[in-house]
Amino acid sequence: MTKPSIGLTGLGVMGSNLALNIADNGFDLAVHNRTNADVDRFLEKSGDLRARLTGHYEIEDFIAGIATPRTIIMMVKAGSVVDAVIAALTPHLEKGDLLIDAGNSDFNDTVRRTKTLEDQGFGFLGIGVSGGEVGARFGPSTMAGGSAEKYALVEDMLNAIAAKHEGEPCAAWLGPDGAGHFVKTMHNGIEYGDMQMIAETYGVMRNGLGMEPKAIGKVFERWNEGALGSYLIEITAQILQTEDPQTGADIIDVIVDRAGQKGTGRWSAIESQKLGVPASAIEAAVTARALSAGKDQRETMERLYGTPDTVISSASMEAIITQLENALLAGKIIAYAQGFSVIRAASEENGWNTPLARVAEIWRAGCIIRSVMLNDIASAFANNPALESLLLAPAFADKMKATHADLRTIVALTAQHALPLPALSAALSYFDYARQGQSTANILQAQRDFFGAHGFERTDEEGSDHHGPWAMG
Amino acid sequence: MTKPSIGLTGLGVMGSNLALNIADNGFDLAVHNRTNADVDRFLEKSGDLRARLTGHYEIEDFIAGIATPRTIIMMVKAGSVVDAVIAALTPHLEKGDLLIDAGNSDFNDTVRRTKTLEDQGFGFLGIGVSGGEVGARFGPSTMAGGSAEKYALVEDMLNAIAAKHEGEPCAAWLGPDGAGHFVKTMHNGIEYGDMQMIAETYGVMRNGLGMEPKAIGKVFERWNEGALGSYLIEITAQILQTEDPQTGADIIDVIVDRAGQKGTGRWSAIESQKLGVPASAIEAAVTARALSAGKDQRETMERLYGTPDTVISSASMEAIITQLENALLAGKIIAYAQGFSVIRAASEENGWNTPLARVAEIWRAGCIIRSVMLNDIASAFANNPALESLLLAPAFADKMKATHADLRTIVALTAQHALPLPALSAALSYFDYARQGQSTANILQAQRDFFGAHGFERTDEEGSDHHGPWAMG
Repeated sequence: MTKPSIGLTGLGVMGSNLALNIADNGFDLAVHNRTNADVDRFLEKSGDLRARLTGHYEIEDFIAGIATPRTIIMMVKAGSVVDAVIAALTPHLEKGDLLIDAGNSDFNDTVRRTKTLEDQGFGFLGIGVSGGEVGARFGPSTMAGGSAEKYALVEDMLNAIAAKHEGEPCAAWLGPDGAGHFVKTMHNGIEYGDMQMIAETYGVMRNGLGMEPKAIGKVFERWNEGALGSYLIEITAQILQTEDPQTGADIIDVIVDRAGQKGTGRWSAIESQKLGVPASAIEAAVTARALSAGKDQRETMERLYGTPDTVISSASMEAIITQLENALLAGKIIAYAQGFSVIRAASEENGWNTPLARVAEIWRAGCIIRSVMLNDIASAFANNPALESLLLAPAFADKMKATHADLRTIVALTAQHALPLPALSAALSYFDYARQGQSTANILQAQRDFFGAHGFERTDEEGSDHHGPWAMG
Repeated sequence: MTKPSIGLTGLGVMGSNLALNIADNGFDLAVHNRTNADVDRFLEKSGDLRARLTGHYEIEDFIAGIATPRTIIMMVKAGSVVDAVIAALTPHLEKGDLLIDAGNSDFNDTVRRTKTLEDQGFGFLGIGVSGGEVGARFGPSTMAGGSAEKYALVEDMLNAIAAKHEGEPCAAWLGPDGAGHFVKTMHNGIEYGDMQMIAETYGVMRNGLGMEPKAIGKVFERWNEGALGSYLIEITAQILQTEDPQTGADIIDVIVDRAGQKGTGRWSAIESQKLGVPASAIEAAVTARALSAGKDQRETMERLYGTPDTVISSASMEAIITQLENALLAGKIIAYAQGFSVIRAASEENGWNTPLARVAEIWRAGCIIRSVMLNDIASAFANNPALESLLLAPAFADKMKATHADLRTIVALTAQHALPLPALSAALSYFDYARQGQSTANILQAQRDFFGAHGFERTDEEGSDHHGPWAMG
């Protein structure tokens, strides 16, 4: 048997499934895991694909078992583990070998590792992989950053294992070093926004309109046929119509409302702030997870403030459901506009030249946020690569014009009924702020000049260092 | 003349004023500036205080001109300049000398510098100084972090130069290494929140109620007599009643609505995210500045979407103004609750043991956010140092119960009139989310388990790794 030229280390759920996907697409593969028992378990379960796989317990054997130039995929926990694995691998590698970090790494780490490894003569790609377990096994969306030449060496393999949208692989090279992991970070930030906004509309139907989970599930099923059509709406519809096998109750009612989060969501908010690009709807969604985690304090607060009457008495429940659908669409458009603006800014800041249309294209299948809307986003950026904001694209402006009144109505209604919509209301504030040529920030500039002599621009003169005739100035 | 034991380098506006303040309080002081002409200019303008001041052009002379053990205050631009100044000073220092960074440094840098300098045998304090130019000259609020022993050496001087609240100096040691700069960062984050919420209520009066600046100034003047009484409300009242000497117009109308920002506001949002503590109202205020900066894009957006009719037709303008006052108070309480929760979390994370009551106490005079409310905050934390959230303190719960209905009304009203209230609406969402024992985050947990097998907690069993009977699981 000839040696495979590809190796994969890290046989957790994602790594195992990615390895099977690679083998399934006709590539021989050497696999390794720090815990040796997992290597055996993985090979035992590999079934028909066993013949394409060689297992290794020791790093040295693993690397010796791969033909040069080697491609080694690391699918391990982001952070110091990646550095540890790199440190363990590199002494045994040869110049020209290529390491791929396919985990959810912080793009800042990827930038650093790219430089270090390239200086040592190795290749390095940071690839974001979205699609969860199923995506990893049967076709993820892959977002790559690093050297274009190195990417070319693995492009066929990545295209083969990727999800396909109308036959086109959802895999792309998005720019040098950290570009891929940055885009994955913003993918996840947008995902947080999508999920939170869906949860908010669920909350309005459940607590405002008094609907049962299964009925709400039917609403999401209907929404999934329209402009909101997406994997997340689809699975929400399924979730709400699923019963708990143990109790027979609606499963949503046995799940504790304390949401976990991983690094990427938080990073998306942090990087947006660092870049100075407003991403308030995404940020609000990330923050909402932190709020959910403080359930004990929320319970104390409820005892102190009392349980609000959230019931919306309305003649027309159907009318509100339609308004909710439009509000969710408007909110989603705004969150995507924010996310893409952050990617554009990071691309400019880092000189990545990330093609935004390609980003939207490869999100159309395989990944968690796949949706019909991504087609329109891809078109918007393909038609105008310099598009500054999705909200300025004609197709999205039309959608926003048709829906923002309903977003307004829903935010107003829920504010009065103590139904919290942090992400959707942040989206509305963003839209209303972003569409006004004249804002109220002249107040801020006056205050800053008053107390700190920071200076301001005048409407009728050049220069930014004008001052007011303040008594204390 | 005997050598002074205190030196100050960095004679910008803040440094010059701080130097005069120190001399004015009876301390002899050696001063230095990289640009020598500024040393001369400073001394020339020092008037009666000239006798207490010795000026130096060269670092070596400057240090030689200070009696040991030396205390050297650096008031230079945050970031790499601080490191450069430290590198220039340390070769000439002796063990036991104390360096003070009085700039707006990132607390992460302060933690690093403390370790490095203490390892070299030097003392180091990171002190946040608030109060703008005037505060620096006549009494700032100072927030110190570092070794308690070193603080004791300069405590008298810091107390002497600080603002006084009913005779008590607004100066405190708040914990080891980065504690002072962290508290200053959150002070500034809260300041962003205060300023933005004030700007938002101005916007409602101006664009919703059609009031003229001077009339709005009168409203703020009235509000300043009540629970909102604060420096920022006071100066806003003055600003709105100030005419531009050049044109005779209301000055607010000649100031461009593009707000600048420095690092601290952004850091407050970033650190909150890193700690996983929700600070959405503060974050929204930081984000609003970024939105204000994109004025060109806002103008493009306004052309595309049209200028909305923001006019609120209402029988009672006075009723809305009262609701606005209550809304602003509720929003402000929420923002402060968030800010203090972030400080508590950072203190726990870093083992600072920062006394929250002291933080509130030293903000009562000298600093930009000084207000009558800080008295109640100080009492709340003094009464219960373990208080988890200001919203749980009886005095604030009473205020919130009296005002949140008006915050609701204002958010609802402005949502319908396209008047953007990013910070106030984020505050309301936070309050409504934080007061509900049962949130909608069970949807998020179900989704996460569905697509990523992340597992969830059940309401009826222990453990966090339960899974749903999903078809794809």
